[in-house]
Amino acid sequence: MSDATEGQQQGQQPTRSARKDPWELPDVSGLVVGVLGGTGDQGRGLAYRLARAGQKVIIGSRRAERARAIAADGLLGPAGVEGADNAACARRSDVVIVAVPWEGHAATLSALRAELAGKLVVDCVNPLAFDKRGAFAVRPPEGSAAEQAAALLPDSRVTCAFNHLSAVLLQDPAVDRIDTDVLVLGDSRADCETVQALAGRIPGMRGIFAGRLRTAHQVEALVANLISVNRRYKAHAGLRLTDL
Amino acid sequence: MSDATEGQQQGQQPTRSARKDPWELPDVSGLVVGVLGGTGDQGRGLAYRLARAGQKVIIGSRRAERARAIAADGLLGPAGVEGADNAACARRSDVVIVAVPWEGHAATLSALRAELAGKLVVDCVNPLAFDKRGAFAVRPPEGSAAEQAAALLPDSRVTCAFNHLSAVLLQDPAVDRIDTDVLVLGDSRADCETVQALAGRIPGMRGIFAGRLRTAHQVEALVANLISVNRRYKAHAGLRLTDL
Repeated sequence: MSDATEGQQQGQQPTRSARKDPWELPDVSGLVVGVLGGTGDQGRGLAYRLARAGQKVIIGSRRAERARAIAADGLLGPAGVEGADNAACARRSDVVIVAVPWEGHAATLSALRAELAGKLVVDCVNPLAFDKRGAFAVRPPEGSAAEQAAALLPDSRVTCAFNHLSAVLLQDPAVDRIDTDVLVLGDSRADCETVQALAGRIPGMRGIFAGRLRTAHQVEALVANLISVNRRYKAHAGLRLTDL
Repeated sequence: MSDATEGQQQGQQPTRSARKDPWELPDVSGLVVGVLGGTGDQGRGLAYRLARAGQKVIIGSRRAERARAIAADGLLGPAGVEGADNAACARRSDVVIVAVPWEGHAATLSALRAELAGKLVVDCVNPLAFDKRGAFAVRPPEGSAAEQAAALLPDSRVTCAFNHLSAVLLQDPAVDRIDTDVLVLGDSRADCETVQALAGRIPGMRGIFAGRLRTAHQVEALVANLISVNRRYKAHAGLRLTDL
């Protein structure tokens, strides 16, 4: 990036928020985390990692029996994860991670507007499509999945995070540490800090504030590039920000 | 990302390109590198780093005198950089990095179509705009700056790289090493590998293939997020890919 854009930031007067230590994050150990789509690979992996880090986690699914069965299985059972239908999962949680397939994103969230009112919602859905040349980003009319969530859930506090994690690594109990940074986007500093703190509970991860919700599209879309990297290098690539 | 998308990649039959060692890169030490917009902060910083790494570098500007004056200055002079007008810079170079301001991108490239024919073009321009809430990405009609370059330069080989480097770090002669990965995008493996090898000549950098040109928008746009990170953390953030 250019010196001008970097300089522009540096030349600004310190504001209240700029002065606060950005690494000072709240204690989130008492929060209940719900994971909508917690029976899928990404949701299950996140539920596992957060529960393993000591968080109370409830996974949601359209069918309560399925959520309960997955919650009781080999990976999640010993970690103390509970299962419920999506509505109960949302109602009982303080923070709700949205990990449903992109195809069901709008419908699932629309149906849960009342249950998600007042909740901190963390969207980790990446709108992607595939053809013979690989993965590419889809651009929702709202700009991004996270902005779609914000539009559909006017009574919730919506953030975007956990977009770049490998479901394979998340779900591998032999992996003790996942060295990656979780980019957290949102328009409320307090909400972002809660999500950053949650990410930071997982060994190897840091939760890093990375902009407002209106810049979520590129963060979601970057997964198409990580898929290309994974294919070329036979890896489960993650992101780490340098110089911080 | 989901297990399905990762699995989809893993389940494919190995192709010729998939079998080749992705870290095996060509010797690029003999290539002449031109930098259009080499008198700006980003271009000057890149020219300095490549010349310092032993590459023959020519910076281009609209006015030859200005390019020569900047090339002879404190930073670039001892590194042996030459200055020329944009047309001569393009003509004399094997690889041409485009580091002009986004506002002049289309006009500059259109005017150099003949000089850039047959050349390997590396676009590092990030279409951004700013308002009171910070930086945000602009989406060119072609999808990205790099795709705009490819549309305007049908006789050139266009790639996208060097989007995420801090001009401050690039231009600081006291900085010996810049720990960051350079994401390289393009539709020709050989061309990407040349650019990857160039990036790898700069101490601390790796050139990583990260997808086709059609996925360039999010790579360019991510700079808006890095600007948010820099502002919050008082940093010059770069990217490092983990697990490779």
